[in-house]
Order: sequence, then structure tokens, then C-alpha cells
Amino acid sequence: MKEFWSARIRDMVPYVPGEQPRGKKLIKLNTNENPYPPSRAVLEALRQAADGDLRLYPDPESTSLRQALAAFHDLRPEQVFVGNGSDEVLALCFQAFFTPGRPVVFPDITYSFYPVYCALYGQDYREIPLDGDFTLPVEKFLGGNGGVVLANPNAPTGRAVSLQDIRALLEGNPEVVVLVDEAYVDFGAASAAELVGQYPNLVVTRTMSKSRSLAGLRVGYALADGNLIAALNCVKNSFNSYPLDRLAQAGAEASVRDRAWFEDTVAKVIHTREWTADRLERMGFQVCDSSANFLFVRYPGVAGRTLMDGLRQRGILVRWWDRPRIADWLRISIGTDADMEALCAALAELTGTAAN
Amino acid sequence: MKEFWSARIRDMVPYVPGEQPRGKKLIKLNTNENPYPPSRAVLEALRQAADGDLRLYPDPESTSLRQALAAFHDLRPEQVFVGNGSDEVLALCFQAFFTPGRPVVFPDITYSFYPVYCALYGQDYREIPLDGDFTLPVEKFLGGNGGVVLANPNAPTGRAVSLQDIRALLEGNPEVVVLVDEAYVDFGAASAAELVGQYPNLVVTRTMSKSRSLAGLRVGYALADGNLIAALNCVKNSFNSYPLDRLAQAGAEASVRDRAWFEDTVAKVIHTREWTADRLERMGFQVCDSSANFLFVRYPGVAGRTLMDGLRQRGILVRWWDRPRIADWLRISIGTDADMEALCAALAELTGTAAN
Repeated sequence: MKEFWSARIRDMVPYVPGEQPRGKKLIKLNTNENPYPPSRAVLEALRQAADGDLRLYPDPESTSLRQALAAFHDLRPEQVFVGNGSDEVLALCFQAFFTPGRPVVFPDITYSFYPVYCALYGQDYREIPLDGDFTLPVEKFLGGNGGVVLANPNAPTGRAVSLQDIRALLEGNPEVVVLVDEAYVDFGAASAAELVGQYPNLVVTRTMSKSRSLAGLRVGYALADGNLIAALNCVKNSFNSYPLDRLAQAGAEASVRDRAWFEDTVAKVIHTREWTADRLERMGFQVCDSSANFLFVRYPGVAGRTLMDGLRQRGILVRWWDRPRIADWLRISIGTDADMEALCAALAELTGTAAN
Repeated sequence: MKEFWSARIRDMVPYVPGEQPRGKKLIKLNTNENPYPPSRAVLEALRQAADGDLRLYPDPESTSLRQALAAFHDLRPEQVFVGNGSDEVLALCFQAFFTPGRPVVFPDITYSFYPVYCALYGQDYREIPLDGDFTLPVEKFLGGNGGVVLANPNAPTGRAVSLQDIRALLEGNPEVVVLVDEAYVDFGAASAAELVGQYPNLVVTRTMSKSRSLAGLRVGYALADGNLIAALNCVKNSFNSYPLDRLAQAGAEASVRDRAWFEDTVAKVIHTREWTADRLERMGFQVCDSSANFLFVRYPGVAGRTLMDGLRQRGILVRWWDRPRIADWLRISIGTDADMEALCAALAELTGTAAN
């Protein structure tokens, strides 16, 4: 029964995040978390911020954090918006930049939260099929839409597009906003952040959950022309004036300032991804080119669900979707080297191949 | 210019929170913060939670925190919903329970975020005037509406209604949701939390920002029948799966478990409120009966703005609204005894009266 539910929400089908098992010893390669702990400077900043000032509201503008992010990206603070994870930032973007009756477009295979946001705000949308190898048919995204949403690199495939393609999308859609979701960009794709000053219709979103090992702190942000950031602030200030608590602001800022930790950690994840991809290919897996902290793979002749279930029995969680075109595929987050050795051994067992 | 802004938001007028001065030595009585630091158990729990597990997503269901809140309120965990401050929880309630074309009603003088939420979701509303002394004309809220929203105690007046009145509202509006915003209830009003099991159309919202001294941590919650909580989860999971970070969940739970700190702190604030109200009345102020951690006062013959400006010149911030019916009034948060002594002295100067 849905008595008392608003007409707005009766037909909504919420997003389902990957499983978060509690209190179990599992190798968790299902939600693209970073296998390494965050910077020590972050933990120290958090402990420092756990003081009596928690009685006071946080800075509603997250001024100091936005200044640090602006410096990191060579932008101005008024070109930066922060929120409670990039999921919140994305939701506010859908509300702020797209208009009912003018369908927004995104690929048929991409982050499955996008159609959920559309349902949340009554926003029309149209899914445009990726090519057979999951590459983006850029020409099909040029014009005739109410906005473009693109994950770069894409999830769950890991495939990236070039900045040249992003420029083509921006110039081919000058009347509408092009939203580039860069949740995974630090692991090897070219960021459109450097284009923010050049295109008034570009929004880039980012998260600290992946490359900065802060999924547990819930900090995301957007980079865009000041006019678009003002729109996000208009929505934010009509929803929740204080999206980031004092600790999240302090911890996120410490993370942005620790470049050495960031570069070192990203390099480790990329190194592990590369040898894992090689190994799986040698075992007979088809592996999508990945610029992210996960691999999208399939083994010819074995159903994705069979592999997922077999891995689960061996204590390894990966992500699988019961959806057209990708039901044979698994998305596997990059863990530590030891995690990936265990993964390769388990997959060798399941496919009857040698693991090296 | 609002190029690229959604048609949804072009006419929005965001909420304006009270000023959060940074780096200044002021007596801050403008945003109803608690003058006392949070429980030491909270700070300890936060420091403990600042560890390597921040690389992992938080529990999207905040299970442990919801269990603690359920125990505190003698309810079941499925009757509890938590969010990123009660502002977020309220926003999700407006989206989940009210429907365009069926106007929701609330008093003309109340929390000024309510009409902003309505604009955010295209929700019709009707403001019903409070009586001249700011009491609630309960009979005008019985039926003929798409929902009722009531702050109890009310802000900015501090006036509370009885549980008998709440029951009348619930029984007079059996087809729609009655939302009771109890942000300030711990300072002396009767909570409707105990009615949750009896009325399927009741939602009670709470915040940890005031009575628990955790404005800086951003934790709010709702108590309601499981069916209504399911509606909130539907919206939440279509917006942001992980509204509370790991630290906020840990700190909030520690707060709920420290009953001694809670009772002691609330008692101190109430004691300070009572002597301050007495003192101001003896000085000639009109003081609304307050069940909250603030006082709503005016001085006959002196404009509210004049008093606010005079206090500001003396380093004391209070809240004033340039709005019909309340432009002569100030809302003054309850600080420490020393803060309130300073306030009384400054007001005595400004009104030419004796401060004791």
C-alpha cells in the first residue's frame, strides 16, 4: 500500500546501490571503493575538527574547501560547488539545468542513477545506444536534445572519450548544458575541468569517493561557469543550506592539499588495473579498455551471473546487472594486488583456465 | 542572466539562513545554536571513526543509528528515517507526502523554509494566519487541505501547542499527512513521537542541531508509521543513497546514547531562558511564552530593526525579519548565562531601562 504517498513518487523505482555487507570478511570489489586508506593528513584534520565547535553550524558556502578546490583545478571559487557526495551534486544538476518537455540524452549503458534522477524531477529523457563495443557515437549526441549527460570514463564500461569529443559535444549543443560526470577521471581519462573557462554550457562533476578514498565522507563537487554554479546554489539553498558538515569540509580540504598521497595512490591503482587486465586477457577474458578504477569483463560462453555467483561463493563481491546488452559482463573494482590475485585465481577456477 | 537555468528554478527565491560570521568575536544569538559543546562521548566516537574505513561507503540505511533512535523513542527502526540535517528531512517530506493541486497549509508566521520547499517542488500551499498573540487557530486547520505542516514549538515565536491539539489536527485531517516539525521540542513542548503508533498520517521531524549541540554535524530524523518511512526511503534512494557519512552516523549514535548529558544540557538552557524572560519582562519587553531555546520579544515603541542594529554594534547577533506582523520583534537564541547577561545589559542601554 502507498496510502499518503505523493502522486509524484508512486511510480518511482529507486536506485539500488551495490551491497554494503556489514561485519563479514569479504573481498569487496563491487562498489568501486579505493583499496587504500585516505591520506593521514585527512584523518588528522578530522580528529582536529571533532571539537566543541560542532555546536555551531558549518560554513554554508564551504568557502575554505571551495578555495582549495579552485586552486587545485586552476579555477575561481565561484566556479566550484560542493555537495553531499557527487550523487547529490548530480541530482541538483538534473533539477537545475534540465526542463520537462525537453528530453535530456545519455547513453543506454551508463550510470543507472541518471534515469532515476529524471523520474525524481519528472524530467523527460532519451537513451542513445552505445556502439557494439561500448564506444560513444558522438554524432548522435549533437543537437535536438534538452541537455547531455555523459560519464567520462563511462560506468560500468570504463571507456573514456577524448577532450576533442567533449569539445564536439559542447559545440554541437550550444543551447543546452552538457554535464560530464568525472567520478572516475583521475584513473586515466582527460578531464574537461580545463574547458570550464571556455564553455558556458559545461558542467563537470567530481567525487572524493574514488581517487581520494573518501567514500565514507560523502563529498562531491561541480566545476562550471559562475552562472551555472549560481543555479546550483539557488537549488541547494532551496533544499538544504548546509550540505557539508564541519568534519567533511575539514577532511576534504586536507585531502585536496595532499597532492603526494593523491598521485601515489592513483598510480598504484592504475598499476594494479593494468596487470589485472593483462592477466584476465591471457586467461581468455574480453576486457574493456578501462580508464577507471574498475574493469568490465566477460568470459565467452559463461553467463555473467554464473561468474558472479561463483565469485561470491569464494568470498569475492563484484557487480552484475540483469540488463540487456550487459548481462554477460561483470564490473570488477580494482582492489589491492592481493585482492586481484585472489580474484584471478577464483576466475581461473570458475572458467577452468590457468591464472597466469 | 539565467541562461541554461531550468524553467523549474528561474523564479525560485531561496531560503536565507542566519549569518555565520567567520573569525569574529561575537555573541551569536541568531541561529539557535546550543551554547554548550556536545557530549564528550560524541567527540570520542568521532575521533574513533576517523580511520581507514573512510575509504568505504557508509551504511546507506544508517542501521545502527536508527536502532538507537528507535530505542530512545520507544519505536521500531522501520519507524525511523535519518537525513543530512532536518532541513533535508523536511524537504524530502514535502516531496514525498504532498501533491501539486492539493494545497498544503501552514501558519503565516512559521519557519520560512516551508514556502521555499513548496517552490522547489511546485507544491501549492496556503498560509493560515495565527491569532494576534501568535497562538494557533486549530479549527482553521481541520480539513480542506492537502496536508498540514506545523512547527511545535513554533519558530520564531517559541509557542507550543498541546498534544490534545495535535490529536485534533490528526483526526481532523485523516486523509492527508500532518507533519509536526519538532526541531525545538526538547526545550519544553510535548512531543508527538508517542502518537506515531496511533496515527498512520503523522510524521514527526527532529534535529540534533539544537538540543544535542550538533548543528555542525548535520543530522536530522523523522518518526512515522512504516508506510510513510518507506515513502521517504523511496525518495531518498532516488536522490542520494548515502545521506549520512560515517562520522555523522557514529557521532549521532553516541549522542543518543548519552542521556545524562542530554538532560543536563537541556535543563541548563531552559533555566537560562526562564531567568532571561523574567528579566526582559521586568525591563518592559513583551516576551512570547517560549518552549524553545530562543525568545521572541519586542519593546513597545522601538522598532525591531533598531534594536537588532544596536545589538550588532555591541557585538551581539540576533535574528530579525522585515516581514508583516513580526517586524517589531526579535528572535534571540538562548546562550550561556554570561551571554544573556551581556544581552540584557545591551538592551537596557538601548531602551534606557534598568537591566535588573
